Amino acid sequence: MGLLLLCNGGFMLIATIVSLICDDGVTTEIMLASLATMFVGIVLMFLTRDHQKKINKREGYIVVTFGWILMSLSGTLPYIFSGAIPNFTNAFFETMSGYTTTGASILNDIEIIPKGILFWRSLTHWIGGMGIIVLAIAILPLLGIGGMQLFAAEAPGPNADKLHPRITDTAKRLWYIYVGYTAAETVLLKLAGMSFFDAINHSLSTLSTGGFSTKNTSVAYWNDQPLIQYIIILFMFLAGANFVLSYFGFKGKVQKIIKDEEFKLYSFFIVIFSLISAAIIYYKADVSLSLIDHPMVWGEAESAFRHALFQVLAVVTTTGFVSADFTLWSPFLKVFFFGLMFLGGSAGSTAGGMKVVRHLITIRNGVMEFKRTLHPNAIIPVRYNKKSVSKEIVFNILAFFILYMLAFIIGSLVLGALGLDFETAIGGAASSLGNVGPAFGKLSPVNNFDVLPAFGKWWCSFLMLIGRLELFTVLILLTPFFWRNR
Amino acid sequence: MGLLLLCNGGFMLIATIVSLICDDGVTTEIMLASLATMFVGIVLMFLTRDHQKKINKREGYIVVTFGWILMSLSGTLPYIFSGAIPNFTNAFFETMSGYTTTGASILNDIEIIPKGILFWRSLTHWIGGMGIIVLAIAILPLLGIGGMQLFAAEAPGPNADKLHPRITDTAKRLWYIYVGYTAAETVLLKLAGMSFFDAINHSLSTLSTGGFSTKNTSVAYWNDQPLIQYIIILFMFLAGANFVLSYFGFKGKVQKIIKDEEFKLYSFFIVIFSLISAAIIYYKADVSLSLIDHPMVWGEAESAFRHALFQVLAVVTTTGFVSADFTLWSPFLKVFFFGLMFLGGSAGSTAGGMKVVRHLITIRNGVMEFKRTLHPNAIIPVRYNKKSVSKEIVFNILAFFILYMLAFIIGSLVLGALGLDFETAIGGAASSLGNVGPAFGKLSPVNNFDVLPAFGKWWCSFLMLIGRLELFTVLILLTPFFWRNR
Repeated sequence: MGLLLLCNGGFMLIATIVSLICDDGVTTEIMLASLATMFVGIVLMFLTRDHQKKINKREGYIVVTFGWILMSLSGTLPYIFSGAIPNFTNAFFETMSGYTTTGASILNDIEIIPKGILFWRSLTHWIGGMGIIVLAIAILPLLGIGGMQLFAAEAPGPNADKLHPRITDTAKRLWYIYVGYTAAETVLLKLAGMSFFDAINHSLSTLSTGGFSTKNTSVAYWNDQPLIQYIIILFMFLAGANFVLSYFGFKGKVQKIIKDEEFKLYSFFIVIFSLISAAIIYYKADVSLSLIDHPMVWGEAESAFRHALFQVLAVVTTTGFVSADFTLWSPFLKVFFFGLMFLGGSAGSTAGGMKVVRHLITIRNGVMEFKRTLHPNAIIPVRYNKKSVSKEIVFNILAFFILYMLAFIIGSLVLGALGLDFETAIGGAASSLGNVGPAFGKLSPVNNFDVLPAFGKWWCSFLMLIGRLELFTVLILLTPFFWRNR
Repeated sequence: MGLLLLCNGGFMLIATIVSLICDDGVTTEIMLASLATMFVGIVLMFLTRDHQKKINKREGYIVVTFGWILMSLSGTLPYIFSGAIPNFTNAFFETMSGYTTTGASILNDIEIIPKGILFWRSLTHWIGGMGIIVLAIAILPLLGIGGMQLFAAEAPGPNADKLHPRITDTAKRLWYIYVGYTAAETVLLKLAGMSFFDAINHSLSTLSTGGFSTKNTSVAYWNDQPLIQYIIILFMFLAGANFVLSYFGFKGKVQKIIKDEEFKLYSFFIVIFSLISAAIIYYKADVSLSLIDHPMVWGEAESAFRHALFQVLAVVTTTGFVSADFTLWSPFLKVFFFGLMFLGGSAGSTAGGMKVVRHLITIRNGVMEFKRTLHPNAIIPVRYNKKSVSKEIVFNILAFFILYMLAFIIGSLVLGALGLDFETAIGGAASSLGNVGPAFGKLSPVNNFDVLPAFGKWWCSFLMLIGRLELFTVLILLTPFFWRNR
C-alpha cells in the first residue's frame, strides 16, 4: 500500500509538470499534493519494511479493496489543495469515479478547472485502467472471482496457484499495449484537429473506458468533426475488448481473435445494437410504427449511424462519453439503453459492468438447464471456447449475476429513499454499479451527479467501488465469517 | 384437454345460474357459451377415447401450456357472446388475466358489466387458482421446474416418480381448504357489510390471489369500512402462504408451521415491509428526511397501517387489489413497491411471482458462494428446513432466477418498443410476469391495461402465462431440441 501511494504521488508529479507547462496557477498545490502522498507512502513502506512480502488469499481481498480506497483518498489531494473541488465529499466522489473508470462527475463547469487538475482527473482514469488490467490478469483469478478464472485460462500465462513470473510478463505486455494504444489515439486525435491537451486527456479517458472529458458537452463538442468521433469509436471498441486479443493481433495470430467466442458476441452486440438504434434515430420513429418513407439523406444517415454507434459503444464499454443525449431519442431507446447498462465489456478489458463472457455462460447454462429438465439424468456441461466449463465456475458466475442484480436493487432503493425519482434512482444505481457514468432522469448525460445529496454521493462511490472490483472482492469483507477463525 | 373444456363449460353453467338469479339479461348468452364449450369438450373426448391415458414428461409440458391456452380461449366466450367485451383481443387478455390470477383488466367501467359476467370473471380467477394448486403439488415437481421439487418434498405426499394416489389425496385436501377458505371469507365479508354478490366475488378473487373486483375503485370502495379490508388482508395472507401449512394447522400441527423457513421469511417480509411503508405514509416523509414530529392520531395511524399492510400483501401475494394508489405515496415507496413485484408469495400457494423459497435458497447460496470463494476445496451445501438441498435443485433455482430477469428485461423492451414510456414499460412487464395486476405509470392502480395497443395486450398475456407456469413449462416448448428426437 505504501508502494501504491508512492506511485500515485509519482503520477501527481506528471500532473505537476503539465500544470507547469500550461501555467495554470496551481502548480505548487499539485506538487504539494504529490509530495504529501509520496511522503505518506514512504513512511508506510518504512514502517512495514520488516514484514514478509508473501500475502495470503484473505489478505489479497483486503489489499485490493483498501488499496483502491487509499488511492481514492490520496487522489483527492490535488482537487482539495488547488481549490478546484474544495468539498471533501465531492472530491472523493470525483476521484473514486476516476479510479473506477466510471466517469460520473460532480463538476458543473469543467472548462473553468485549471488544466493541471483536468489532466490529473483524466490520469486517475488511466491509473485505474492499469490497475484493472493487473487485477483481471493476475489477482482476481487467484481470488476466485466469478468467471475470471475462465478468462485467465485464456490468457497466455496463469496455471499455477501463485503469481507466476509468466503472469507478471503477461501483465507487462498488456500494459505496453495499453500505453501504445493511448499514444496512438493521442496522435490520431491531434492529427484529426483536436488540441494536444484535449487529445491526450481524451485518450487517457478512452483506453481506460473512463469517460471524463475536458469539455462541458463531452465529445458532443466535436459534433461537426466526425473524424474525431470515429477515432474515439475505434479506441472505445478496442478498450472494451480483451487486451489479450490485441496482443494476439500484434503477434499475427488472427485465428485466435476470430475464434474467441466472447469477442464474437461482443462485436455482434455492438453491430446489431448500433444498427437498431441508428434506424430508430434516422426514421425518428418507434419500431412499433411503420417506418416513415424517408428519402436517404447521406449526412443525416451518417450522423444517425455515428451517434448510435458512439453511444452504444460508450454504454456497453462503460466509457460514458456523450455525443448526444440518448435518453431523449425515443421511449424505446431509453429502455434499450437502460438494458445496455447491464451488459458490460469483455473480461480482460478495462470495461466495467457484468461482462459479455458472463452473459454468454449464463445464457448457455440457461439453455442447458432446459435440456437438463428434459433429461434429468444426463450430464450436460456448458462449453466455452471449445472447452467444458467446470460446474464450480458456472455456479460462481450465476451467483455473481444474482449478486449484481441484488446490488442494483438495493442500490436503487437507497437512492429512492433519498427522495430521487424512479428513473433517476434506478438509472443512477445501474450506471454507478456498471461504471458507466451518465444515467437517466436527473442524472442524464446533460446533467451531472452534483444533484445528489451528500449521502447519495458516498453511496454511488460505494456502488462504483463494488462494481469495479467484481462485487465479491469488496463484499466478502462485509461477511462475518471472513474475519472469523483467522 | 377435452375434460378440461367440459369442466370449464360446467363452471360457465354456474355463471349462468348467477346470471339467472340476478336477472341481468345475458343468461341465454352465457348458457350458449357454456353449451358450446361443453360440446367441444365432449367431441374432443370422443375423438381421443382410444388413446391411452398415461402421458410422458414431454407431453406433460404440452398439456399444461396448451391446456391453459385452451381454457383461456374458451373462457372468452361468455364475454364475446354477451357483448360485455366484444373485441377478441380484449376478451382474451381479460380471460388470460383471470386464469393466471393476475387481475389486470382492460375494462374501463366495471360496474356496468352484467352481474353474470362479473361473476364469470371472478370465477376464472378461482378456477385458475385450483389449477395452480394441482400444478404445484402434483405436476410441476414431476416436470422438474426450479425449486418445486423442494416444496413437493415438504408436501405430505409425492415421493414416487408418478402421480401417486397419495398426491391426488393431497391435492383434494388442499382443494377442500381452498373451498373452505372461500366460503369462510364470503360469510365474513357479508357479515361485515358487503352485499352477498360482492362478498362472493371478492372471496373468489382473494383466495386465488387474482385481484378482479366488482367495483371501479377496487377495494378502495370500502375505505370507510376497515373491517372489510382487514378481512381481505387476512385471507390474502392465507392465500399467499403454502396451503399445506394450512392443512397442518387444521391438523393441529402448529410446530410444522412455526418451523417452516419459507413461512417465517414470508411473514417477516410482510411485517417489516408493512411497517416501513406505514411509517412513511403516516409521517408523509421520505425516510431520508428526519421524521416530522407528528402527534399520534389514532385514525390516521390506523389508516396508514391498514393501507400499507393491504398494499404490501396485495403486491407480495400478487393479488393486486387496490385500497390506495401506492404509486403516489412517495418516490421511495414507488421504487420499493417495484421491488416487491419480484418477491412473490410462497410455493404451494396460489400466488405468482418468483416465490419466497427461491429467494431464500438464492440468498443462502449467495452467502455460501462467499464461503466457497474463501475455501475453494470445502463442500458447503445450502440447507433448507434442516435438510441439505441438492446441487441440481440450487442450479435449477438460479437458472430460474436469471431466466425470470431475462424475461422481465425482454418483456420491458418489447413494451418500450410499442412506444410506452419507461415506467409503464418496466412496470407493466414486472406486473404481468409476476401476475400482480396493477403496475406503474399509465398502468398504475387507478388506470387499466386498455391503454395498451393490441400487440401489447397479447404480449402481456404471454408474459402472464409464462410467469404463471413458472417459465420453464412454457419456454421449453420454444426450444428446438424439445421437438427433436421424440
